[in-house]
Amino acid sequence: MGPSSKKIEIVLAIDIGGTYTKIGLVEKNGTIRGKRVFSTGSKHSFQGFVLNLEDEVALLCAELKNKIKIVAIGIGAPNANWITGKMEHPPNFKWGDFVPISETISSLFKLPVVIANDANAAAVGEQTYGMAKEMKHFVVLTLGTGLGSGIVVDGKLVTGANGMAGELGHVSVDPEGRSCNCGLKGCLETYASVTGIKRTVFELLAELKEDSFLRGISYDSMTGEIISEQALMGDVIALKAFEITGKILGSKIADTVAHLDPEAFILKGGLSKAGDILLEPVVRNMEKNLFAAYKGKVKIYLSPTDSSNAILGSAALFWQGRM
Amino acid sequence: MGPSSKKIEIVLAIDIGGTYTKIGLVEKNGTIRGKRVFSTGSKHSFQGFVLNLEDEVALLCAELKNKIKIVAIGIGAPNANWITGKMEHPPNFKWGDFVPISETISSLFKLPVVIANDANAAAVGEQTYGMAKEMKHFVVLTLGTGLGSGIVVDGKLVTGANGMAGELGHVSVDPEGRSCNCGLKGCLETYASVTGIKRTVFELLAELKEDSFLRGISYDSMTGEIISEQALMGDVIALKAFEITGKILGSKIADTVAHLDPEAFILKGGLSKAGDILLEPVVRNMEKNLFAAYKGKVKIYLSPTDSSNAILGSAALFWQGRM
Repeated sequence: MGPSSKKIEIVLAIDIGGTYTKIGLVEKNGTIRGKRVFSTGSKHSFQGFVLNLEDEVALLCAELKNKIKIVAIGIGAPNANWITGKMEHPPNFKWGDFVPISETISSLFKLPVVIANDANAAAVGEQTYGMAKEMKHFVVLTLGTGLGSGIVVDGKLVTGANGMAGELGHVSVDPEGRSCNCGLKGCLETYASVTGIKRTVFELLAELKEDSFLRGISYDSMTGEIISEQALMGDVIALKAFEITGKILGSKIADTVAHLDPEAFILKGGLSKAGDILLEPVVRNMEKNLFAAYKGKVKIYLSPTDSSNAILGSAALFWQGRM
Repeated sequence: MGPSSKKIEIVLAIDIGGTYTKIGLVEKNGTIRGKRVFSTGSKHSFQGFVLNLEDEVALLCAELKNKIKIVAIGIGAPNANWITGKMEHPPNFKWGDFVPISETISSLFKLPVVIANDANAAAVGEQTYGMAKEMKHFVVLTLGTGLGSGIVVDGKLVTGANGMAGELGHVSVDPEGRSCNCGLKGCLETYASVTGIKRTVFELLAELKEDSFLRGISYDSMTGEIISEQALMGDVIALKAFEITGKILGSKIADTVAHLDPEAFILKGGLSKAGDILLEPVVRNMEKNLFAAYKGKVKIYLSPTDSSNAILGSAALFWQGRM
């Protein structure tokens, strides 16, 4: 065997989020050999993203170039269709209605690409390297800029007839409700996501009279972290925002249980970092709305995986089934 | 080979509904060799049902006794858990919280029993003998006394972690809405079922001033057939009731699409007999509420199978996979 056979086999993992894109070099066993983060530029051009990606990958690989062999690329991206390889109507992006992400990146790097919806990738990641190693029926919800989901039934990711299953961010909370980037109104992600709780906070600031630290922060400066911090410190508005978010998310989770009878939900993403302040009202409201046969049977976990490790999901798209 | 080997192999199929129970003798190829219907007696005792069943099966088999060999029993029953073999918390029955249906019937007839939720059985029936022979991803909705559902993903019935998947009758339309037999409020089946449209009619009779044939009929005498007939004849109240039913069912179907990305829904049961009066508002409201990636891709069919053939689903639970 020549020297090249001693190189470590690596998947170049790419996790495209509405705000940041994470890239990393991941071994089959889940070891991360390096990672980087850069702004996605979802409101600018797709071409600009591709140029940035090329530069970032070059920087990522610079040190390890002679030690690794990249065998494939795994991509998690919002609204990515695993069959067509395109991002289809991604609501938080201005890259067009059908973004040829798989084809573009595959020809850029001359490597095979496996692609899935970012939340589907997260589900495969939890199954391969994370909390769901022993689970056959579970749902991952990523509560970030939007709300993504990945559904696993009988140990297998549900992809659907057109490769687009698992868009729970767009189930309806209120058909006359908040405008969603997707063009519909009252979608779940307009309530149960970092953006959603921020909108709830601003509704509460208008509705209620209570003093709140949050009254000093503009809409553009408000973050999920600030709301979480204030809730932990007892801010009435922030606490009420978590209660409302938990009520809506818990009741919708109960509807998903009525579809799938899963053993667990795994919450990930920015909003899940709030911990028990989010988890307690979600569990309470789920239980309240569960059909009798499911009561007390469904677990809700917060994934301890740091979001900088979202690339594990993208890598797992390739490595899963090769373990 | 002895003479007994020439007997036709038959599954005794039992379809337990909230009002009627259908039994039949079904060959592997779906030929029905005989069938009977009797009142379920869901508001009386389970013991009474079992005694009736024994008598009815004896009558069913009387003529064919020497020509057939019953190899198994297939049962479709509301809230039946295919793992435990029990009907769990069936909301429209007064037979207890855990009805040991599989065990009781198996020892009564000394035959193996396969059991599933009646709507799950209907889904397997459509897959084995009906409209879904070529489909891999579809959902059956049975719109009868309640609303049942059976979900097929990748050609396989979704049964869930506890054997109780597919209870779409109990997703929430309005948490402050109509009382449901299950103890929750505002469940889908309190709107989109024969009972649901009847409740909608009575709400409209109270709310509106329009003349209607339906004003002369008591709640207890009102049926789905009467409402359908009147809608076909242009009765304003009846038409509006179908419009409301279609709006609610269509929007909830859109939510189910966001979970599963199925190719089709198949509507069955009493309410589906209304035909286009139901189908048109369901399709229109589904499309209106669909996330962009699904628009124009999901079909909704009315199953042409006569409901007296519901036993095919129960039989298919055994015959499927043996074809």
